[in-house]
Amino acid sequence: MPRIVDHEERRGQIADAVERLIAAESLDSVTVARTAEEAGISVGLVQHYFASKDEMLLESFRRVRNRIEARVAARRQRSERAGARIERMLLDGVAELMPLDPARRSEGRVTLAFTARTFGNPGLAEVLRSSNANLRAQIEQALRNALACGELPEPVGYELEAARLLAFVDGLVLHCHTGQRPLSARAAHAMVAAELARLLPGPCDRSR
Amino acid sequence: MPRIVDHEERRGQIADAVERLIAAESLDSVTVARTAEEAGISVGLVQHYFASKDEMLLESFRRVRNRIEARVAARRQRSERAGARIERMLLDGVAELMPLDPARRSEGRVTLAFTARTFGNPGLAEVLRSSNANLRAQIEQALRNALACGELPEPVGYELEAARLLAFVDGLVLHCHTGQRPLSARAAHAMVAAELARLLPGPCDRSR
Repeated sequence: MPRIVDHEERRGQIADAVERLIAAESLDSVTVARTAEEAGISVGLVQHYFASKDEMLLESFRRVRNRIEARVAARRQRSERAGARIERMLLDGVAELMPLDPARRSEGRVTLAFTARTFGNPGLAEVLRSSNANLRAQIEQALRNALACGELPEPVGYELEAARLLAFVDGLVLHCHTGQRPLSARAAHAMVAAELARLLPGPCDRSR
Repeated sequence: MPRIVDHEERRGQIADAVERLIAAESLDSVTVARTAEEAGISVGLVQHYFASKDEMLLESFRRVRNRIEARVAARRQRSERAGARIERMLLDGVAELMPLDPARRSEGRVTLAFTARTFGNPGLAEVLRSSNANLRAQIEQALRNALACGELPEPVGYELEAARLLAFVDGLVLHCHTGQRPLSARAAHAMVAAELARLLPGPCDRSR
């Protein structure tokens, strides 16, 4: 079905252009005309794929968050195959949200711009909520597995603990992006590492 | 000097109108015309006090953050007079940032809207940075006092610990505002309380 592949590719090309515009300037600078220019296609073609600017923004936000979630899932699978500590798996997973390189810095700024737009925009709000729910579910499962293998010494309130961890990471990320001293991305990463080391002090025994 | 008082009052009246517009709608809906309408004064008068929309936004953000900082400082003074535990003082202080009632919910949404605008806007970025630096300095001082009175069992890296605490609070606040389950404002408050209880387990002896 080559037409469907083309369709998705073209939508991705447009969504990527939206993302670059937000990262380089702001969400306000996104218009259908500027997106068409950035994507190197005609305004008419953009309009063929997206009925409105809002639909275009929604698709762009969805793709940014899907890409982050996919990287987190891929890291988890690699860590599982390697038999890594769950502490390490969690740290590597949440590091995908942290501005440790230009690509993640760009994603973080785009996410923050969209986050401020979730008020009064139920579509964007739902993308953020479901993306975070997915991340929390992965953290929650990791914590349950950590109890099973011994890294977590005793049961915790998994749902709240996962919410707490993700909020901590997102707060650090927010402060990194807004240039709050003395928080560099590396310092934030070290704080998450320390938090996970405190939470998961036990030996990892996958044969348990 | 009645003219100076009038001047500040009028600027405050305009800045409050900006804040109400952002809280009720969005930062995008703020124009000089709509602000004049919301404040119940003429466009010409708004322009007399603010040369541009950007100056108006800056003043509004500055006032929101100053108000929060003033409440935090007032709470600290009350707690000090009452000889309260520093753990309690810190919890009450950061609670001023949390969406525990409609006024603080409104302030939090306004702060988040401005935060997303700090990119590419050095004035707004500086307001956020200096406001957070002030809050972190107060937290840092409280932690040093906690060591002196015995609540903090041993010295910590005060600057980083204060940055960590404020980022944790701001992350929780962000998730509350964006409706992330299962984080209610009350649940977030309980998480901060638990974090402070963990950090400051010692007895408080102000005579030390």
